[in-house]
Amino acid sequence: MARPDLRRNDEMRKMKIVPNFTMHAEGSVLISVGNTKVICNATVEENVPPHVKGTGRGWVTAEYSMLPRATNTRNRRDISKLKLNGRSAEIQRLIGRALRAVTDMEALGERQIIIDCDVIQADGGTRCASITGGYVALWLACKKLVDDGVLKKIPLTGQVAAVSAGIWNDEPILDLAYEEDSHAIVDANFVMTEKGEFVEIQGTGEGRPFTKEEYTRLMSLARRGTAKLCREQRKITGEVG
Amino acid sequence: MARPDLRRNDEMRKMKIVPNFTMHAEGSVLISVGNTKVICNATVEENVPPHVKGTGRGWVTAEYSMLPRATNTRNRRDISKLKLNGRSAEIQRLIGRALRAVTDMEALGERQIIIDCDVIQADGGTRCASITGGYVALWLACKKLVDDGVLKKIPLTGQVAAVSAGIWNDEPILDLAYEEDSHAIVDANFVMTEKGEFVEIQGTGEGRPFTKEEYTRLMSLARRGTAKLCREQRKITGEVG
Amino acid sequence: MARPDLRRNDEMRKMKIVPNFTMHAEGSVLISVGNTKVICNATVEENVPPHVKGTGRGWVTAEYSMLPRATNTRNRRDISKLKLNGRSAEIQRLIGRALRAVTDMEALGERQIIIDCDVIQADGGTRCASITGGYVALWLACKKLVDDGVLKKIPLTGQVAAVSAGIWNDEPILDLAYEEDSHAIVDANFVMTEKGEFVEIQGTGEGRPFTKEEYTRLMSLARRGTAKLCREQRKITGEVG
Amino acid sequence: MARPDLRRNDEMRKMKIVPNFTMHAEGSVLISVGNTKVICNATVEENVPPHVKGTGRGWVTAEYSMLPRATNTRNRRDISKLKLNGRSAEIQRLIGRALRAVTDMEALGERQIIIDCDVIQADGGTRCASITGGYVALWLACKKLVDDGVLKKIPLTGQVAAVSAGIWNDEPILDLAYEEDSHAIVDANFVMTEKGEFVEIQGTGEGRPFTKEEYTRLMSLARRGTAKLCREQRKITGEVG
Amino acid sequence: MARPDLRRNDEMRKMKIVPNFTMHAEGSVLISVGNTKVICNATVEENVPPHVKGTGRGWVTAEYSMLPRATNTRNRRDISKLKLNGRSAEIQRLIGRALRAVTDMEALGERQIIIDCDVIQADGGTRCASITGGYVALWLACKKLVDDGVLKKIPLTGQVAAVSAGIWNDEPILDLAYEEDSHAIVDANFVMTEKGEFVEIQGTGEGRPFTKEEYTRLMSLARRGTAKLCREQRKITGEVG
Amino acid sequence: MARPDLRRNDEMRKMKIVPNFTMHAEGSVLISVGNTKVICNATVEENVPPHVKGTGRGWVTAEYSMLPRATNTRNRRDISKLKLNGRSAEIQRLIGRALRAVTDMEALGERQIIIDCDVIQADGGTRCASITGGYVALWLACKKLVDDGVLKKIPLTGQVAAVSAGIWNDEPILDLAYEEDSHAIVDANFVMTEKGEFVEIQGTGEGRPFTKEEYTRLMSLARRGTAKLCREQRKITGEVG
Repeated sequence: MARPDLRRNDEMRKMKIVPNFTMHAEGSVLISVGNTKVICNATVEENVPPHVKGTGRGWVTAEYSMLPRATNTRNRRDISKLKLNGRSAEIQRLIGRALRAVTDMEALGERQIIIDCDVIQADGGTRCASITGGYVALWLACKKLVDDGVLKKIPLTGQVAAVSAGIWNDEPILDLAYEEDSHAIVDANFVMTEKGEFVEIQGTGEGRPFTKEEYTRLMSLARRGTAKLCREQRKITGEVG
Repeated sequence: MARPDLRRNDEMRKMKIVPNFTMHAEGSVLISVGNTKVICNATVEENVPPHVKGTGRGWVTAEYSMLPRATNTRNRRDISKLKLNGRSAEIQRLIGRALRAVTDMEALGERQIIIDCDVIQADGGTRCASITGGYVALWLACKKLVDDGVLKKIPLTGQVAAVSAGIWNDEPILDLAYEEDSHAIVDANFVMTEKGEFVEIQGTGEGRPFTKEEYTRLMSLARRGTAKLCREQRKITGEVG
Repeated sequence: MARPDLRRNDEMRKMKIVPNFTMHAEGSVLISVGNTKVICNATVEENVPPHVKGTGRGWVTAEYSMLPRATNTRNRRDISKLKLNGRSAEIQRLIGRALRAVTDMEALGERQIIIDCDVIQADGGTRCASITGGYVALWLACKKLVDDGVLKKIPLTGQVAAVSAGIWNDEPILDLAYEEDSHAIVDANFVMTEKGEFVEIQGTGEGRPFTKEEYTRLMSLARRGTAKLCREQRKITGEVG
Repeated sequence: MARPDLRRNDEMRKMKIVPNFTMHAEGSVLISVGNTKVICNATVEENVPPHVKGTGRGWVTAEYSMLPRATNTRNRRDISKLKLNGRSAEIQRLIGRALRAVTDMEALGERQIIIDCDVIQADGGTRCASITGGYVALWLACKKLVDDGVLKKIPLTGQVAAVSAGIWNDEPILDLAYEEDSHAIVDANFVMTEKGEFVEIQGTGEGRPFTKEEYTRLMSLARRGTAKLCREQRKITGEVG
Repeated sequence: MARPDLRRNDEMRKMKIVPNFTMHAEGSVLISVGNTKVICNATVEENVPPHVKGTGRGWVTAEYSMLPRATNTRNRRDISKLKLNGRSAEIQRLIGRALRAVTDMEALGERQIIIDCDVIQADGGTRCASITGGYVALWLACKKLVDDGVLKKIPLTGQVAAVSAGIWNDEPILDLAYEEDSHAIVDANFVMTEKGEFVEIQGTGEGRPFTKEEYTRLMSLARRGTAKLCREQRKITGEVG
Repeated sequence: MARPDLRRNDEMRKMKIVPNFTMHAEGSVLISVGNTKVICNATVEENVPPHVKGTGRGWVTAEYSMLPRATNTRNRRDISKLKLNGRSAEIQRLIGRALRAVTDMEALGERQIIIDCDVIQADGGTRCASITGGYVALWLACKKLVDDGVLKKIPLTGQVAAVSAGIWNDEPILDLAYEEDSHAIVDANFVMTEKGEFVEIQGTGEGRPFTKEEYTRLMSLARRGTAKLCREQRKITGEVG
């Protein structure tokens, strides 16, 4: 069965990163993956959280939120419910782990970089877009630390990007849009380096359990997808490491 | 003394409204006033707040928030402090009052329109931009109700737009950017209709008290400014009423 | 048409300030404006908020709240909703700005004065009464600092008082009681010094927009009202400055 | 050793109840016990909490709070800490139980009376004053229901009043002021009916444990105290039951 | 009338304390009183609350909570309501006072012991079980401080235990199970030392007021009950003091 | 290198499930996996969340929390921070998805089963233990619905159990205890059915990225582990489906 937007099963949506999207953040991009649009802003702060204070090491963390009308029906703001959305809590922890995986905390020094990922428009894959765009925002902020003479070199050990894959109409497909995602039988997210190694993986059987064979096919699809995303990232960052 | 961006005292910053900025909201614009950028999304909901339930009349309300890095230093999100920022509370009440002033609640019928104003980049005048852009988002949402056959005509009785004016270096100036705003002696905001009448006004002596004469000069400046903003709105909405 | 309590259009309600109303606060008054009654307590604290720490300068801030049954129907307490009422947030910011406008922060020195305004009974004009009474509480607390030998002179540069004015039955009237306020077409608040200058002004077209001419008439009414309030304040404070 | 205000050990402070203290509440008093002053406002609401809904029975509950500057040093408001003070939670549960003990819920019918006890000035014994004054506010609200023809007779089965007693300088004393309370070895509160029966009692060994004999002496003191308080209540309510 | 579990009126339920119930806490017990089961964990922390900082004295505090399904119907967690249960607030204050009454804060030194009482299964008397078990957890934590060479001797001046008593079917009974508690006319809790002195007492007339004579009978019952509980505690702690 | 407790790399810790651990819940177990101990209580409620109301279908959800002293240092309770721990939010979402994957919502009918997982003692693998034990609690609650005549058959389509696997000292190991977990290079969790299919998987490169080959070895280990867990579950549940 054909995908709603007629993509091949292993075809990604058009991805675009606009660097320096806002003017105040140390690093800022607008990433679009199809109709999904996320602003990723990186802030450098000289104060660090308690658990790294005095260690000489840095920290990278992330926050994730959707505008109320990023989705088809309006979501009340977290503050009006006085609760951080459970899904947002889960996603921002994932983004933080992904970006820390490629950061050399010794080289960063005792400072913190916070990546704010605010989803302006959602059409599936917002957590993956946040990681892929967040990496570039992080790189831009690090670049600024180098340009300002604070650091000698960019304290990143590699690239990181993320893509979804899933089983839909019993076929493995790459980079699910919302309509596909909401009917997928298996739904998975992959965070990978530019070398094709895995940083974090998740997979959920939404409609039925899945087999090892099915999952390894999704891993292969994801590898192709993230390789493409990393090439796009390098159009802005150049070669890293 | 010359203004930082060399504008004349009665000169507005370049204002631009991009309609249909996001795809899910019933009405959506991105408004830019100089470097200030606000996304205004209008949502139509069929359920209404308790105080109008059963009256057959509608309601318009607004929410205002800044992205953490809309400003020069990062602001923690409301949810991480568990408190709605006092300034945001004040501003969203102002936006709501302004938009209700031009809405015919009988004609709207028992439904609610929520205007979400999310500041992406701040450089002074975010509350005014939210009102000016929020009006167009509201109009677009009303237009959709008409196009969808829900309403016969757009239930708005006029246009509303807002601009700041202030006394800076002892001279009255129009449409203050952040740098001007932070050094102004008197700071005022004016919400006006396309007929040059006032819907809401505020004025604060930041550095010293001010006189009736000074304030009436600001009122005149504001009238010129909002007339221009209303003309820009009409490029999207056409003639109203 | 006659006002409900038969006042002339430019006539204020009876205003009375009871100094030293409670025994623990450094400055305390009960202010009555007609049936509106507010306790204003001033607390001197030696610790200051972060933004003035180390500057040698002081700070004045205010908190505003209503008892649950200050009004005709009971309002749930903020704590039972876990949210500061938006209206309270707006009003306490206004009171703080008004009182800071007449305080010499250098002369106050690195300490903070907090003005708690708790409305015991509401009948319109609670924000204005809070400012007018809050000023006297502030003065009493400053007087105590002088009497205790902490300061040489009272660090206030003038008086501040506030009154409402509005358009009701198409006539401009001064000092609106609740019943008038709830039917006013235009509703405005004016914070003024004893010299008749403006510190802060607000104005809202509740029923329809208003013109510059209408507003300037309200400004004139307010000037007369606040002059009277300042005379009453001086019965307690004597001449200031 | 003499008490700070030279009272005899079994002597109460001067107690005074001002009825109809505020104008909006169905029942309202200001109670003063020495320097302790509490506003008790009773609100009648036709909606009831879930656990009595549909039973035809009523409910009585209480809320207790102190103004920030009711005490010698300022207490931050609950809302600024987002937590109901633990002490307030404990006290308002006590007040509610005390007042429910003399209310005939069948006779009240399916409606709720909320007693708001707001401490304006604290000098020991605020929970007891809240109960003693709260009873009169409750009675006034019930009286109004009778006067309005809603109820046939006042749905109260008796009076309730409360007083503290304690051991101070190894002597049992009645009705402790703050300075006594803060140095008492044993501190107890007694809620009693006009017949000298106990509705609720509490006792704490602050400095050392205490014996049955000591406690029974305090019970006797309290009986004398509450009898006097009940006589004062009857000056307003007349004979009850 | 016979008690539901056929106990004599002055008969306690079977009480059992399992020491070292969890492996991480400095002191840990599982206490069972009939079907009521509470885990009491004592944590030693070197940091102290502000009011004892720098005094060289220590502090003991308690927290109390029920698992959602400790009771017959499920209670929502405090965090999902964002409010500490009022009953829990009241109980944890009681437990803290009880345990502080037998602690020598000078001898403890500037450190804090926190007793977490988590009710796993509730069948009446959870606050009393928390105190009786909490005492042993506190003792175990103090014992560890001695064994680790931090303190010379256990800084406790005596034992403390608690039991309920009440009037049920017009007869005084000891140690009420939930079914008895929910139908008791008078309900009281007694915190006592091993010497039979009272540390804290509470009593409530649930169904009707009560007399001094009735209460003193409950005090006598409670003395017998706590003496037995103290003997059980000593099976673990040995002689104290 | 040998594992701290000398297990073989593919050896599980001793797992034990005590059914009917608490008396009030419809389903209740205490599960121990080595030193990790979790109480899983299942509650059947007849009311359902809004998104299934009126559909005739049921819902299964989970809540996860740790006692403050389940861990080596004490964690403050969520309620004292007014925030649900981000890690808990993530874990309880995982548990809910896992249990829903084996529930036939049509067969369950319009009712909700809530699984409360409260960790009493933590030594690694608490989320996996919660799923494995939560399944049995869910089964017991369903069994009760059948025994009570509410349902004809148990509405579960299979078993679900979870285990961790990871790379530690460059070797793949099964079922990590806390000490292993905190030094693992790769850390993964697997939720599987009794048929060896995957319901949900997660994997994180803590120390370095990992390869597809490494991950598939962990998948194989997990299959062995969950097969053993499912056998243990069947000792209580018998054959399912």
